[in-house]
Amino acid sequence: MISKQQQKYVQSLHNKKYRNEFKKFLVEGEKGILELVGSDFEIEKIYCTEDLGNKLHTINPQVRFELAKENEIEQISTLRTNKGGVAIVNQKSGNLSYNTKKLTLVLDDIKDPGNLGTIIRLADWYGVSDIICSPETVEFYNPKVIMATMGSFSRVSCHYISLVEYFKNNTLPVYGAFLEGENVHVANKTLPGILVIGSESHGIGAEIETYISQKLTIPRLGHAESLNAGVATGILLDNFFRDR
Amino acid sequence: MISKQQQKYVQSLHNKKYRNEFKKFLVEGEKGILELVGSDFEIEKIYCTEDLGNKLHTINPQVRFELAKENEIEQISTLRTNKGGVAIVNQKSGNLSYNTKKLTLVLDDIKDPGNLGTIIRLADWYGVSDIICSPETVEFYNPKVIMATMGSFSRVSCHYISLVEYFKNNTLPVYGAFLEGENVHVANKTLPGILVIGSESHGIGAEIETYISQKLTIPRLGHAESLNAGVATGILLDNFFRDR
Repeated sequence: MISKQQQKYVQSLHNKKYRNEFKKFLVEGEKGILELVGSDFEIEKIYCTEDLGNKLHTINPQVRFELAKENEIEQISTLRTNKGGVAIVNQKSGNLSYNTKKLTLVLDDIKDPGNLGTIIRLADWYGVSDIICSPETVEFYNPKVIMATMGSFSRVSCHYISLVEYFKNNTLPVYGAFLEGENVHVANKTLPGILVIGSESHGIGAEIETYISQKLTIPRLGHAESLNAGVATGILLDNFFRDR
Repeated sequence: MISKQQQKYVQSLHNKKYRNEFKKFLVEGEKGILELVGSDFEIEKIYCTEDLGNKLHTINPQVRFELAKENEIEQISTLRTNKGGVAIVNQKSGNLSYNTKKLTLVLDDIKDPGNLGTIIRLADWYGVSDIICSPETVEFYNPKVIMATMGSFSRVSCHYISLVEYFKNNTLPVYGAFLEGENVHVANKTLPGILVIGSESHGIGAEIETYISQKLTIPRLGHAESLNAGVATGILLDNFFRDR
């Protein structure tokens, strides 16, 4: 049984305002919760079905959780169907040290939660552990972002800072995704470096463009006008990390 | 004014059953309708806002449309907000001649409409005009697929046929996306050829796997378990069509 008070508390965390106030966020569904319990996030509470509970116990008998019925879980979840569970998790406090050994991803106003989630997952695939986000980029702790990362939220950090501040003291080469840049297949791509991705509809902002040392383009052989920011990021990362 | 009868008719086309029965489908929103009027699809009717009407008239004064208020359009649309319009369009009759000059994409049970839409858009970007789909792949004319193509539905065709039948008489090399194949960066990729993509959760089915001559993998440097089918298709297509 999830008490009315707990229900209200978890539901309040659907909103950014209360996520910020309580410094908590939600991880929903089996995949996310399984990744969560292996991560360094502090878990306040997990509500889950018996099925997921058994899996959690198998992975780690120390993990504590409270069993709940599927319909109870769906009442506190942002998902219409959720056969796994909902975890309430502490947000990490701002950490400004980040790994720029290889490639650093910088996102300029990526507002779509699905796109940010896809990009976090791609960063995880290619071993990029830190992402610099403009303040207007969608919140990392948004439940749709967390879901779309398919567990990669536990291995990739997003740092929200003014990009102008970030670039002020930068000495690394800065690559940017544009529709009219140099062919990414042949362009010289030295690492360590920084790759800036803008939104599909607005691209990289004019102010940030002044910091780009090399514009890159994914060659187009057909007629589509543009690619979605997540897909473009995947293709560009594959070009940076290829076995040359 | 959209009559009650027309309203019912358009709403019926939200469902696959009636799309099949009437051999029609819907194109919704400004971007899709603008691409539609430049395509070879036969349009039955366009309901649109004055704003979109003006744009259509500028492109082609011959295009006929009926003006409607935004709330009327939203009543007949599958989209919660639609500031452009809804077009009722004839489905194309089955056409079994397709272009296999370069790369042919084959989809094995891609069930997510967003993924199919993304893949159609990527095909359009890379100049792949035809996609072979297993019968269990989501319907091309599904409104979510059409929306996700961002207009590319007008330039790429999907052919739904038994993949076993399709492969029976095939003599081209068949590449397939797997988690444990050869590194796509270095593998020999000769064209013309066929690239098979399975769903993220189930991969390529066992029966279809027997037709694969070369398994390909996108090298992973980090820890994400898999990539979504749309993103993986983008990275693989970029590897096939790169300036080597």
